[in-house]
Amino acid sequence: MRRLINGRSYVSGGARSAVILRPAVGISARESGMAFEGFWWRMMSDSASMEKVSLQNDKGKKENSGAEKERSKENRVVSSYWGVSQPKIIREDGTEWPWNCFMPWETDRADLSIDLTKHHVPKNFIDKVAYRTVKILRVPTDLFFQRRYGCRAMMLETVAAVPGMVGGMLLHLRSLRKFQQSGGWIKALLEEAENERMHLMTMVELVQPKWYERLMVLTVQGIFFNAFFVLYILSPKLAHRIVGYLEEEAIHSYTEFLKDINSGAIKNVPAPAIAIDYWRLPKDATLKDVVTVIRADEAHHRDVNHFASVSITLC
Amino acid sequence: MRRLINGRSYVSGGARSAVILRPAVGISARESGMAFEGFWWRMMSDSASMEKVSLQNDKGKKENSGAEKERSKENRVVSSYWGVSQPKIIREDGTEWPWNCFMPWETDRADLSIDLTKHHVPKNFIDKVAYRTVKILRVPTDLFFQRRYGCRAMMLETVAAVPGMVGGMLLHLRSLRKFQQSGGWIKALLEEAENERMHLMTMVELVQPKWYERLMVLTVQGIFFNAFFVLYILSPKLAHRIVGYLEEEAIHSYTEFLKDINSGAIKNVPAPAIAIDYWRLPKDATLKDVVTVIRADEAHHRDVNHFASVSITLC
Repeated sequence: MRRLINGRSYVSGGARSAVILRPAVGISARESGMAFEGFWWRMMSDSASMEKVSLQNDKGKKENSGAEKERSKENRVVSSYWGVSQPKIIREDGTEWPWNCFMPWETDRADLSIDLTKHHVPKNFIDKVAYRTVKILRVPTDLFFQRRYGCRAMMLETVAAVPGMVGGMLLHLRSLRKFQQSGGWIKALLEEAENERMHLMTMVELVQPKWYERLMVLTVQGIFFNAFFVLYILSPKLAHRIVGYLEEEAIHSYTEFLKDINSGAIKNVPAPAIAIDYWRLPKDATLKDVVTVIRADEAHHRDVNHFASVSITLC
Repeated sequence: MRRLINGRSYVSGGARSAVILRPAVGISARESGMAFEGFWWRMMSDSASMEKVSLQNDKGKKENSGAEKERSKENRVVSSYWGVSQPKIIREDGTEWPWNCFMPWETDRADLSIDLTKHHVPKNFIDKVAYRTVKILRVPTDLFFQRRYGCRAMMLETVAAVPGMVGGMLLHLRSLRKFQQSGGWIKALLEEAENERMHLMTMVELVQPKWYERLMVLTVQGIFFNAFFVLYILSPKLAHRIVGYLEEEAIHSYTEFLKDINSGAIKNVPAPAIAIDYWRLPKDATLKDVVTVIRADEAHHRDVNHFASVSITLC
């Protein structure tokens, strides 16, 4: 029963699950991919997030009130079709949900059980090229950042969010050109890109970028995006293998980051609010917790990209 | 109670909702955006889709068996971490779920209540430029396709799926460059692109593209992608306004398509299987039903893009 109510609270929250509620008001989830659907989610999520928070203590207590709220909200949306204003999401504690870039039902705890030590031993020529490239790329990075891991993480996440987007886009275009289905890879890569973007949104709360760092990000993105774009067209296998190895390096960097936090070289400041919401961390979470969950994410990306390298072709 | 069980079935299906099940096996939904998460969804969805189908007749009957299936499936995935093979999704009727590009919990009925006649009257200079551009673009299109609306729809959907992807990608890159959040637009535009891609996957089942049409798509995509890319960088407002007006034309084309189906000029063939699953159409649905739901989708995209045109800036 608890799980049912659990489910219920997600049903009122998740865009996908909200389908169930649609027939009642004749709104289609085909609206997903629509701006105002985003807003509509937010309307839905008012009750959803409240319920969800309430699950921690008294599960499903708000069930009925939640359901009522939805109905009134759906009506509101139907009536305000063209000029949808962005409604507030209020948490159970009365505070406002401050994020547009992710919704309460898109948040969850990271899987810290993942093996951080896994390494794909270079087998063929492409593997070796990828491995060498990454090792070479690491030299200037180490020289530039040294042990300023906060800054390092922030800057590198602006790069880490590019490959997933490039890959997802090129596979999308390929799917259109070849009139063929994608096999689920497009969505997978785009979601990787989104996750990396959330890492950046977290790190930027911890380390305010200086003007010359912003300038550097501009330059680096300009170069890296185009370089990776061309590389992906030439060889998706090499591109994904490189990302796989980059993620292996990222895991190493975040481990060093943690060492410096433990040794006190880097102050273990409180976790930023966005991280606490995105990974559902305890209110008293610290930088150490944030770096730990981000590292787990990178470990997942490592496995996906090593897997993609042997699965994806563009022709 | 029915709604709770309803909800439950989506919880077992939806990647987002599956979060709930995670603590039990220590898998994090941070795995979303991972290839094997895609496969994992499919594993989950076995019971999910079966439950969902079962909801039509005897709601929640399969509740327990479904829950059991999930647990065993989760364990399977945890154990087969590196080399995940793609499991089959079996519908309640024993037939296999044949689609990788969308999952049962991503499907739903279209909203046919949307106003098809809405038109954004050009107000400022940008509006007028956008409107003229679209009207001019329509001339060669009409000349080339005339009333071959099946072929026309197929070819135009290969173009219609480009703007959402370009917009989503550029807003993603902007979010990284400016260390700023996206306000939900990235996801909204990427989902528009995915929806248009599904239109193409449907049309291609109805009209098999000929070799010279494939060649043309290649050329058109090469030109249109780059042109729209540059246009979006120069003026997202103009870009979205143009898409808004293109969607208005699409609605008109699909209306003409329907006229020819009603008049018998175009044979009202049975709907392709992919369309029946994607829009949850009745098994005996026809081309007429498919064109009707696609037209409703385009009407939603029209509103989103006219809305985006006044909301989005790149600088």
